[in-house]
Amino acid sequence: SRIRQGLFLVLRDFQGLTQIILPQDEAHSHVRKLLSNAPVESVVRVTGIVSSRPPGQENPKMPTGDIEVKVETAEILNSCKKLPFEIKDFIKKSEALRMQYRYLDLRSFQLQYNLRLRSQIVMRMREYLCNLHGFVDVETPTLFKRTPGGAKEFLVPSREAGKFYSLPQSPQQFKQLLMVGGVDRYFQVARCYRDEGSRPDRQPEFTQIDIEMSFVDQAGIQGLIEGLLQYSWPQERGAITTPFPSMTYEEALADYGTDKPDTRFGMKIVDISDILRRSDIQFVQNALSYPHGTVKAICIPQGVVKKRQPDGSLKSLLTKLLGKEQQSELIRALNVQVDDVVLLAAGEHKRCSALGSLRLESADLLEAAGMTLRDPTAFHFLWVVDFPLFLPKEENPAELESAHHPFTAPHPVDTNLLYSDPTKVRSQHYDLVLNGNEIGGGSIRIHNAEQQRFVLEKVLKEDSEVLSHLLEALESGAPPHGGIALGLDRLISLIVGAPSIRDVIAFPKSFRGRDLMGNAPDYVTPEELEPYHIQVSWPVAETEAKKN
Amino acid sequence: SRIRQGLFLVLRDFQGLTQIILPQDEAHSHVRKLLSNAPVESVVRVTGIVSSRPPGQENPKMPTGDIEVKVETAEILNSCKKLPFEIKDFIKKSEALRMQYRYLDLRSFQLQYNLRLRSQIVMRMREYLCNLHGFVDVETPTLFKRTPGGAKEFLVPSREAGKFYSLPQSPQQFKQLLMVGGVDRYFQVARCYRDEGSRPDRQPEFTQIDIEMSFVDQAGIQGLIEGLLQYSWPQERGAITTPFPSMTYEEALADYGTDKPDTRFGMKIVDISDILRRSDIQFVQNALSYPHGTVKAICIPQGVVKKRQPDGSLKSLLTKLLGKEQQSELIRALNVQVDDVVLLAAGEHKRCSALGSLRLESADLLEAAGMTLRDPTAFHFLWVVDFPLFLPKEENPAELESAHHPFTAPHPVDTNLLYSDPTKVRSQHYDLVLNGNEIGGGSIRIHNAEQQRFVLEKVLKEDSEVLSHLLEALESGAPPHGGIALGLDRLISLIVGAPSIRDVIAFPKSFRGRDLMGNAPDYVTPEELEPYHIQVSWPVAETEAKKN
Repeated sequence: SRIRQGLFLVLRDFQGLTQIILPQDEAHSHVRKLLSNAPVESVVRVTGIVSSRPPGQENPKMPTGDIEVKVETAEILNSCKKLPFEIKDFIKKSEALRMQYRYLDLRSFQLQYNLRLRSQIVMRMREYLCNLHGFVDVETPTLFKRTPGGAKEFLVPSREAGKFYSLPQSPQQFKQLLMVGGVDRYFQVARCYRDEGSRPDRQPEFTQIDIEMSFVDQAGIQGLIEGLLQYSWPQERGAITTPFPSMTYEEALADYGTDKPDTRFGMKIVDISDILRRSDIQFVQNALSYPHGTVKAICIPQGVVKKRQPDGSLKSLLTKLLGKEQQSELIRALNVQVDDVVLLAAGEHKRCSALGSLRLESADLLEAAGMTLRDPTAFHFLWVVDFPLFLPKEENPAELESAHHPFTAPHPVDTNLLYSDPTKVRSQHYDLVLNGNEIGGGSIRIHNAEQQRFVLEKVLKEDSEVLSHLLEALESGAPPHGGIALGLDRLISLIVGAPSIRDVIAFPKSFRGRDLMGNAPDYVTPEELEPYHIQVSWPVAETEAKKN
Repeated sequence: SRIRQGLFLVLRDFQGLTQIILPQDEAHSHVRKLLSNAPVESVVRVTGIVSSRPPGQENPKMPTGDIEVKVETAEILNSCKKLPFEIKDFIKKSEALRMQYRYLDLRSFQLQYNLRLRSQIVMRMREYLCNLHGFVDVETPTLFKRTPGGAKEFLVPSREAGKFYSLPQSPQQFKQLLMVGGVDRYFQVARCYRDEGSRPDRQPEFTQIDIEMSFVDQAGIQGLIEGLLQYSWPQERGAITTPFPSMTYEEALADYGTDKPDTRFGMKIVDISDILRRSDIQFVQNALSYPHGTVKAICIPQGVVKKRQPDGSLKSLLTKLLGKEQQSELIRALNVQVDDVVLLAAGEHKRCSALGSLRLESADLLEAAGMTLRDPTAFHFLWVVDFPLFLPKEENPAELESAHHPFTAPHPVDTNLLYSDPTKVRSQHYDLVLNGNEIGGGSIRIHNAEQQRFVLEKVLKEDSEVLSHLLEALESGAPPHGGIALGLDRLISLIVGAPSIRDVIAFPKSFRGRDLMGNAPDYVTPEELEPYHIQVSWPVAETEAKKN
């Protein structure tokens, strides 16, 4: 790792750094010379005497900080001939350079830690599922066929002209078919694929802890996952307590303006419609006149700009339009303190996503200004439940699409509504949220073929033919079943406090989906495409450019 | 599972079969009726009293054979409406039907056993590697770029016109780069892809136990794998003893005519060139006149057609051309007994593959005739070592190709020959053979960039540019390293005694690479191809057919 004044050498291996004392006597001059001349980052083997460091020179921060090795023999196993940059400054290099030389970046303490901890956590998860709870680790195919609406699925040309495999986004169909096949407890650390083009902090291939069980209800899955996380949680991050709190989708949207609330801090959204209903403020009255019209607010503690007078009154243009009593009610409702800022939004909204975003932005700003709102060592898990089964399509709100996926079962209380008013049906879908990030989602599935067919054909207006094998399977003795998938990359990145999931993946792709080290994807020759009966349709611009 | 005379019902779950006694009293008539009318393979829940079976009615073959359940309440959780065939006769159905209804086939005792045992074995392997030996489970990308000569790699079109990912045949490059990156002990249960078109008992996606270590030699890897298999070996298959025997590539070819000898039985190939050299047999003399000309033979014990007289003499057309002394020598050399058959092959051969195949064919014939040559409960592991580093290309014997892969290190004794006579260089490549099947292979890798470049450019005449990232990595402090990959599907199929690897894979493809259940691969619309800038080149015949 480095050499100090021809006297010491710091050797790095999987256990960390070890101080090596170079021999200064004449008899070992060749050893001293060999090691002194070895380029940094070379691979060396030394033998010598391990001894305690002199008193006062111990380094308690290093696991090997109490010892040093007095070299007797040495050998250069491989000399480092070329480094694109000094390795210790690596962390300051651009991410593109780090990814191009990923094998050097991997030598950093942080990446070694991330990858080794990831391996240990996954191993503990396997022990919990496989050894303690009788789950069967089953590998499902990744060369499958396109799922209906699977617009984000990579295609893989086959040797049959015009026929393509598809890389699935999850083993959803296979896990359900395993339940029908009597593998009553399935799990897999599953590689999944999603082609979303360029999106920051998404990867075209990612990993999920994929779980499915027969004869289980929502509480059963939730209890299992709580136990799984508790069992596999790294000691060094403190214990986590179970059960995790739970919140309905409605509550989450009303109080936090998002279905994945960060509950590490307050600043909840408060409905102040009733307080302002008697005001003369025009835009407020306008907003309240709509069916879903409301006025909502968040109170930002110690907001930087002073809006409330030291005497405890409000400072705002709005005060002119509000009576004393209304002002007091507002202060009470939002528990406004001196130096707080109140933000409000009026309009026809169900989701309050604007205030939800403002809440997070404000938290960022406050923390940038030095306030601690979110304890970086805290882990707030939260179940979000009672999602709607269907949501209006964004592009055409008259049509419905599945909020989760078409295999999600309706809430038992709402089953009858499925046939009369599907928009009102809540589902048995549950999301697991950690510190404001969705780290998992699952549902109890439909096990009744008729109900599944109704959802596909009548509600979603989809062609059920492509799913005929699944419908047939449900008719041949399918047990009630449900499951969940945890996003492993995201979970690990939150545990180690990494800014990006790229920091917990050994060889990640860039945000454009490129492997900068090996240069993938890459051009192939027309001959290589021939067995797959495909050819490239060059964009017109490029074809024109080639002509000229 | 089945109903017997309205009195008993056999319930199947993950623990096996349980006998359920239907209540015969009036008070429970609705329960009796409900269960009696339930179609076979329906999913039912029963509650009742568990009691011992009446004396004499125990079934010691079943884990639940000592008990029965007297039903009190029952519920049909899902009625089985449709079965394509009677489930107990399933095993007699065609494989195509079994694969189309794989979710039903999975309910069979055999497939349940295979998949559950596979899961347990893999879990034990992980415990051994991860918990006992400090290996790090690292997931490597499957969307990578085409490797030089990677003709069997599936392509995945990207959204950049003309650029393709490739699904790698193994994580070879990544595992070596992990060594350079300081992850000194890597393993992965890795999904691999190989597009070989239609080949029996091959799968387009398969799984290997992929292992790589730094600072290790051949003996180190072999010891690790022996320990791994011993630790994960299922108790019910008896213990395996280590170390495994070892044989050189030369010996394997000479004695068994193959580099993956089945050592469960004898019938070794014997060189009888010297005995026949003095004969007048023309084709023998012809064969012996070539540089590598030999005459070799195997002796098939109790060969069906009698070729040796009861008096101990040989019966053959050749006897006319052989002297008495030569006949005796032959009988001695091959240890020929009464009723044995001797097959011989003369020609210019190094590999003796014809006699190797004959040896296996003969064993099959003898076993078909009722003889037991290969104990079906025996597991004969064998290391085959000292492979040549290069072999002449089949299509052009003047050119060389890697016997294993271009990253394999030369045998330390032969390193100098690499630069003078590469055909003579033995490698540090080792194969693991089980009962005549190659179940693993690996090597110590080249860690010296210059040597790697020499092999790629001078010996293999390949463009080293596409591997520039690997060559650069070797120059930046790569430790000596080596590894191995075990073919998990094949290994498990041998352990459970399955005729095909399809019997140990939950959702296998047919030998034409098709998923018969979900119908993959399948046609996609031109619109779906658009984002990937590809179009189908329909074969002329089909285009013509469409015109008419």
